[in-house]
Amino acid sequence: MKMRPEKYLRYLFLPNLLELFGTERTKEILTVNPTIIPVREEAAMVVITAYVYSKTDIKEYKNISIEEALSLKCNDHIIWINIDGLRTKDVDLIGDQYGINLLLREDILSVNQRPKVDEIDEILFCLMNILYYNEEKNSIGQEQISLVLGKNFVITFQDDPSRDLFNPLRERLKLATSKTRAKEADYLYYTLIDTIVDNYFVAMEKLGDRIEDIEEEIIRGTNKRALAMVNVLRKELIVLKRSIYPVREVIGGLIKSDSELLTEFNERFYKDVYDHIVQAIDLVDNYRDMIMGMQDLYISNVNLKMNEVMKVMAIVTCVLAPATVIGGIFGMNFQVIPLSGQHWGFWMAVGAMLLIPAWMLILFKRRGWF
Amino acid sequence: MKMRPEKYLRYLFLPNLLELFGTERTKEILTVNPTIIPVREEAAMVVITAYVYSKTDIKEYKNISIEEALSLKCNDHIIWINIDGLRTKDVDLIGDQYGINLLLREDILSVNQRPKVDEIDEILFCLMNILYYNEEKNSIGQEQISLVLGKNFVITFQDDPSRDLFNPLRERLKLATSKTRAKEADYLYYTLIDTIVDNYFVAMEKLGDRIEDIEEEIIRGTNKRALAMVNVLRKELIVLKRSIYPVREVIGGLIKSDSELLTEFNERFYKDVYDHIVQAIDLVDNYRDMIMGMQDLYISNVNLKMNEVMKVMAIVTCVLAPATVIGGIFGMNFQVIPLSGQHWGFWMAVGAMLLIPAWMLILFKRRGWF
Amino acid sequence: MKMRPEKYLRYLFLPNLLELFGTERTKEILTVNPTIIPVREEAAMVVITAYVYSKTDIKEYKNISIEEALSLKCNDHIIWINIDGLRTKDVDLIGDQYGINLLLREDILSVNQRPKVDEIDEILFCLMNILYYNEEKNSIGQEQISLVLGKNFVITFQDDPSRDLFNPLRERLKLATSKTRAKEADYLYYTLIDTIVDNYFVAMEKLGDRIEDIEEEIIRGTNKRALAMVNVLRKELIVLKRSIYPVREVIGGLIKSDSELLTEFNERFYKDVYDHIVQAIDLVDNYRDMIMGMQDLYISNVNLKMNEVMKVMAIVTCVLAPATVIGGIFGMNFQVIPLSGQHWGFWMAVGAMLLIPAWMLILFKRRGWF
Amino acid sequence: MKMRPEKYLRYLFLPNLLELFGTERTKEILTVNPTIIPVREEAAMVVITAYVYSKTDIKEYKNISIEEALSLKCNDHIIWINIDGLRTKDVDLIGDQYGINLLLREDILSVNQRPKVDEIDEILFCLMNILYYNEEKNSIGQEQISLVLGKNFVITFQDDPSRDLFNPLRERLKLATSKTRAKEADYLYYTLIDTIVDNYFVAMEKLGDRIEDIEEEIIRGTNKRALAMVNVLRKELIVLKRSIYPVREVIGGLIKSDSELLTEFNERFYKDVYDHIVQAIDLVDNYRDMIMGMQDLYISNVNLKMNEVMKVMAIVTCVLAPATVIGGIFGMNFQVIPLSGQHWGFWMAVGAMLLIPAWMLILFKRRGWF
Amino acid sequence: MKMRPEKYLRYLFLPNLLELFGTERTKEILTVNPTIIPVREEAAMVVITAYVYSKTDIKEYKNISIEEALSLKCNDHIIWINIDGLRTKDVDLIGDQYGINLLLREDILSVNQRPKVDEIDEILFCLMNILYYNEEKNSIGQEQISLVLGKNFVITFQDDPSRDLFNPLRERLKLATSKTRAKEADYLYYTLIDTIVDNYFVAMEKLGDRIEDIEEEIIRGTNKRALAMVNVLRKELIVLKRSIYPVREVIGGLIKSDSELLTEFNERFYKDVYDHIVQAIDLVDNYRDMIMGMQDLYISNVNLKMNEVMKVMAIVTCVLAPATVIGGIFGMNFQVIPLSGQHWGFWMAVGAMLLIPAWMLILFKRRGWF
Repeated sequence: MKMRPEKYLRYLFLPNLLELFGTERTKEILTVNPTIIPVREEAAMVVITAYVYSKTDIKEYKNISIEEALSLKCNDHIIWINIDGLRTKDVDLIGDQYGINLLLREDILSVNQRPKVDEIDEILFCLMNILYYNEEKNSIGQEQISLVLGKNFVITFQDDPSRDLFNPLRERLKLATSKTRAKEADYLYYTLIDTIVDNYFVAMEKLGDRIEDIEEEIIRGTNKRALAMVNVLRKELIVLKRSIYPVREVIGGLIKSDSELLTEFNERFYKDVYDHIVQAIDLVDNYRDMIMGMQDLYISNVNLKMNEVMKVMAIVTCVLAPATVIGGIFGMNFQVIPLSGQHWGFWMAVGAMLLIPAWMLILFKRRGWF
Repeated sequence: MKMRPEKYLRYLFLPNLLELFGTERTKEILTVNPTIIPVREEAAMVVITAYVYSKTDIKEYKNISIEEALSLKCNDHIIWINIDGLRTKDVDLIGDQYGINLLLREDILSVNQRPKVDEIDEILFCLMNILYYNEEKNSIGQEQISLVLGKNFVITFQDDPSRDLFNPLRERLKLATSKTRAKEADYLYYTLIDTIVDNYFVAMEKLGDRIEDIEEEIIRGTNKRALAMVNVLRKELIVLKRSIYPVREVIGGLIKSDSELLTEFNERFYKDVYDHIVQAIDLVDNYRDMIMGMQDLYISNVNLKMNEVMKVMAIVTCVLAPATVIGGIFGMNFQVIPLSGQHWGFWMAVGAMLLIPAWMLILFKRRGWF
Repeated sequence: MKMRPEKYLRYLFLPNLLELFGTERTKEILTVNPTIIPVREEAAMVVITAYVYSKTDIKEYKNISIEEALSLKCNDHIIWINIDGLRTKDVDLIGDQYGINLLLREDILSVNQRPKVDEIDEILFCLMNILYYNEEKNSIGQEQISLVLGKNFVITFQDDPSRDLFNPLRERLKLATSKTRAKEADYLYYTLIDTIVDNYFVAMEKLGDRIEDIEEEIIRGTNKRALAMVNVLRKELIVLKRSIYPVREVIGGLIKSDSELLTEFNERFYKDVYDHIVQAIDLVDNYRDMIMGMQDLYISNVNLKMNEVMKVMAIVTCVLAPATVIGGIFGMNFQVIPLSGQHWGFWMAVGAMLLIPAWMLILFKRRGWF
Repeated sequence: MKMRPEKYLRYLFLPNLLELFGTERTKEILTVNPTIIPVREEAAMVVITAYVYSKTDIKEYKNISIEEALSLKCNDHIIWINIDGLRTKDVDLIGDQYGINLLLREDILSVNQRPKVDEIDEILFCLMNILYYNEEKNSIGQEQISLVLGKNFVITFQDDPSRDLFNPLRERLKLATSKTRAKEADYLYYTLIDTIVDNYFVAMEKLGDRIEDIEEEIIRGTNKRALAMVNVLRKELIVLKRSIYPVREVIGGLIKSDSELLTEFNERFYKDVYDHIVQAIDLVDNYRDMIMGMQDLYISNVNLKMNEVMKVMAIVTCVLAPATVIGGIFGMNFQVIPLSGQHWGFWMAVGAMLLIPAWMLILFKRRGWF
Repeated sequence: MKMRPEKYLRYLFLPNLLELFGTERTKEILTVNPTIIPVREEAAMVVITAYVYSKTDIKEYKNISIEEALSLKCNDHIIWINIDGLRTKDVDLIGDQYGINLLLREDILSVNQRPKVDEIDEILFCLMNILYYNEEKNSIGQEQISLVLGKNFVITFQDDPSRDLFNPLRERLKLATSKTRAKEADYLYYTLIDTIVDNYFVAMEKLGDRIEDIEEEIIRGTNKRALAMVNVLRKELIVLKRSIYPVREVIGGLIKSDSELLTEFNERFYKDVYDHIVQAIDLVDNYRDMIMGMQDLYISNVNLKMNEVMKVMAIVTCVLAPATVIGGIFGMNFQVIPLSGQHWGFWMAVGAMLLIPAWMLILFKRRGWF
């Protein structure tokens, strides 16, 4: 048998995309519930770093225990405690010492919270998401970070020590010439927020590379799963949007805040962060526009292809028509068939069967039909 | 007869979807009329629960009659009466005793009302919908709840006792350490609203699971009714939106309210609820995005499949062309047909009929056409 | 001839939809011109009803002439004159007596005006549309109504007596216990507006029924004109929107108005109407969502059907291929054809022609291809 | 040869639409540049008309020269100079005499300016577009008009005398009973603006007729160029939008203006114009909705037609299958073919070839498949 | 072999578009990161031009060094320094001398910054993009320009001397009659901004020409890559939007600014620029509308073509059916075939094979089917 239909007909059925494009991400996006008290696993490891600094001197405490952190005194210095790894007990200890309201402690321990800014009892509280690009899954990851500003102290809470963004900042802080050293705690607070926002662009840039790759594949026409991929990208955009959009309000809230914790001079810096976050939002919108454009392009290419196939089929059907009819005519079993007795009869018929389609093709060609 | 056309042609006609996807839901959504006085069936069963509490003591009244409820005195205590099952007479009795305005009573007895907040005659009135997920119908159900806050009393009205969400809250209230016990009536009011809003996420989470299931089916390509299902989901979103969106205004109204019933301290808690409702609205928007993405993906898959089918047809049509023409040529009844007298003539023809398509397939294959 | 092509090919050409879906409605929607002075046919029949009431007594004047209406004195009573049937002369007479500004008179006599509220010379003027459902044409009809509130009087103008909505209201007014009787003219004004707004839901409910019917037909797949019908529905939505959306502004304007004609107490009632109109607008939006969902569903069903047809064609083309080729092979006129001399040769060939497609079908079936 | 493929294949290629739907309009829309100083051809003909009027008397000056216009004295009268035909020199002369700022003179001489209102040096300046319907090109035409209001004078500038809309207004002005005569210059100013806005509806009405015609053609299914036409309509909408939308701001600016040139009483009239312009904007939105609905309807009809064609092809393919196979079976050249020797063999085969398709058709028909 | 399938089947596969439509632009759009300190190549060539002018005299300094620029004294004159080519050192020198804040210096040296306005330390700072049309790549190019206004001085920073727009402005400045000469520094500042905004229209006009060209190709139906081109245009729009939209805020900020650097009189001029930028934004929106309309038109044309192909195929399939069946009937190898012995039998069969299709075609034609 010359036809292996199971081979060609395989095209009738789209390969199972599930292996490639799972619905885990969908689950993640859809089943947010900020109101339940998270069954948060207490962090296995807690890494606490603290800095006690003034314009003239700085002390660094690395990998200290929570008790050590609590024993730090300020003495006109500014204290920055960074806690990577969340345990309810630790948060409570810190909270008690620094007067962090219970509601804020709940926010610190929550998961999937919307970025927000709040001020309670002379504590300025920011909750944001750190974004990073998961190269393996080709997706945007996020991790919640809480930033607490009080009089002369900044405390930052985060879950995963490996996602810590603040190392370059720490190095700079240790320099005597550091601008941060010369200023109040709220300037440190600003640099932390600024670092987080700046990092959004890094994550987005990587997603941008991925969008570009997929666009290339769509233009090349090599990817049959392009739309599934576009769908995956749209999900990533939802994640991005969810983390980035509310930050505009957060920064706006800080700028408009009349908190005594914020010195007037630093407002200018927050405006700078605000500019960046507006640009990040513009960028997310541009991503969306690009993705929708890609989707339209892909669908159009698919249609164009089909159109061409239809044209081929129509042309084949048309040019074969005379040959089939001629073959049918001389294949009839009449006793008297004209030409059938002649030597050149067969060749005439075959000639007609070949020449008519050839003539039709020339005709079509000349008219620019293909 | 080897062809059973009725079998294949069955595919020409979409199975009747009506059995699966009725229009009842559509009816429900489309024929809202809040202005008619509902021909409300008086509740067959009324379950009244009351709590009279202060910081130091609490009394629980379970399954009391309406008259018993009316006889409760406050004596510097806070009274919470919960009425499951609505009867016009009961609402009037309660309304008279607690000074609930006639317009509010109408709202309590209404159906399909839009969530709203109102303050008349030192009574703060909230009307909201409880949402639950109907596992059987795979749809979001809603039930109207009215929350009345007055000086030292909270009264809640609801129709169906089986949908009561407040049991965990009751248990907590009975504890001497309960925060609610130590505070004014408006804190109880807040916890009730908070419970309702938090429950939205539970219902939405289940709808989210369903969206995920359908997405999986679309990715697997196993579901021919995917778009009908997507359409059903879109209707659910309308129901969700209708219940959730106006609640933002409601909570916003409470926060901005200058009612003396609301102590300033609790504003913070309402802001927390506000954050949650904003997040719920974001989530509904994300649901919409996901569903539209699924729809696009599904339609693209359908097109892709069709494209592949067209390709198979075009290839089959092309590779069969030479075989058909050769068969036609040698099937003509001429007396002089070249090769026809030779022994190997038949085999040559058959060989050409098989080799040319084979060669074409190799050619196509090599060019990466399938 | 066994084929009746004109019968099957009838499907190639869509039946003329114009008989079913005319463009009259389009004309109506598109050619609004509120600025021309309407070549208004003076009403053939004018029906004037008047009520002169106070808390204690009420007099009803039915089918009185315009002169009788003008001679009504108020004497501390409230006068409500309802004029069904518009004549320029009558409007001028009434206008002169009650001090209605010329601009307002023009509005009263206008057609296709946008709903609006205005206050000139101590006259509060509302122009709204009454909506009704035209069962015959399955469309929303509208009729303009003008409501004039002055000190102690309300005058309502409308064109068609048969569309009068106020009869139930009149019956209630005649009761001594009527709330309206105990209040100022602006309460009557409110009840009139309330009646009109409430009636929107009646008209929309009927349109909702129609949407539901069409959705059912789309789900059943029985309606080839579904999209034309959806298009008709979209036009109805435009009509609805045009009448309902501006009413929100109108009611909002009444609530914010500082007119002395509006007693402060009634503000609450206008807020109630406002809630209803907001809900009506939500409902129109939901209608739109539903209709767009139906359209998507319909288009998807059409595509799905086509996809199935393509699959059938591809399968038929594939399974017929071997049979056609075998028939062609043994139909060639060679003198030496293998098997041709054998008794069982024919049966072998026929067997192959039947078995190969059967085997292919089994193969396809097993792989779940149909 | 019985097939004339070039005839049928003509359908493969869409006729050249360019002759019908040029891109001139696109050029017009896309290449707006308000900032270049227009290489304005000085008007060949300038038609100046002036009126000097008070409550008691009016003088008309027709076709006067610019010098005559400049020599007009006001003497407690109001002067209205209308200049059709723009020359830089004339504008400068008028501008110098009446104190029109240089920036405003530039606006008067500009082309393609956005409608705007401005007040400089006690001159109130409005720039608007007159819209007319070009019957020949079936498109909306626009012409810029500048309206200058000063103390006791109104000056109007326009380019093309043939587009002058103000003749009816002039006739009314000449009547001693004219309302305009009894009022200040700003009332004349209002009537001019009102005339321009009212004229928008005339132009739109004609475009509405055209939309209706195209809709009818789409419903009839007679127009293969429907979507190209819809595209042309969408361009017209852009032109409409560009001229009409900014006028809302213009009128709003006039209402909110605290210019001493505007007497308080006339505010009411501007509100009337505002109502009209809002309605015009609503109408443009409705036009858009209608056009998008038509487009959807058209695309759906095209799909529906294709679906039917596919069904016909699938049915023809199916019912022909048995006949082709039977013909192939008995066309094989075996020496022993059952029935081949019988008299009725041929008739049996032919009978089967006709009866099986007939039976299939009856079967399909009975199942409601066509 | 008469068929060259590889020729026709070429149509099955879309040509590689990548050569034509690369993804570089996508990269550019997607990977914006304003927060990194740009690894800015210090400009190889710096061209500094300076003007020191008052009403009465002006001095021009061309191609001076940075040191010469710093040595310029103002002496009641206004200084305008234009620096084409950015070097960190130069910016710092200038910044120190003229009191430009460090944050502003960072902005001057940044790339891909969002247009913004800022005022720090009595310095008014504007950052905008110059747009130009890259004829080679058919794309919009942009270059960042910083405009610094201080008391009596204006400093402009730009990277590429070849993109300098200000030459006509310089020529005018040198004229004794120049308006700029007679005014304060902020008037020069306005003319610079005005020049930049006016230039947007030049770039957009060229993009408009390109849109028009592509529309023409779509209408002609000659371009198979139309949608890829439309996609490219959509990217250009994103670039345009990114540069133009924020400028509205910038100009709005200047108008509302209460900076002492801005004299009140010039507000009017900024309002003029504001009008232009609003019109530019309208134009971008119109571009978008046009492009989306083109896309819809193109897709519709593709569908229409396919529809016609399907009609041809259906007609060919139908008219060939009888001929094929007749040929099959008389091709069967029965010994007794009616008419087979007659002389005219063959001609009757052939006649039927030709006449029936001819009759069908006439029938279809008459019914207006093609």
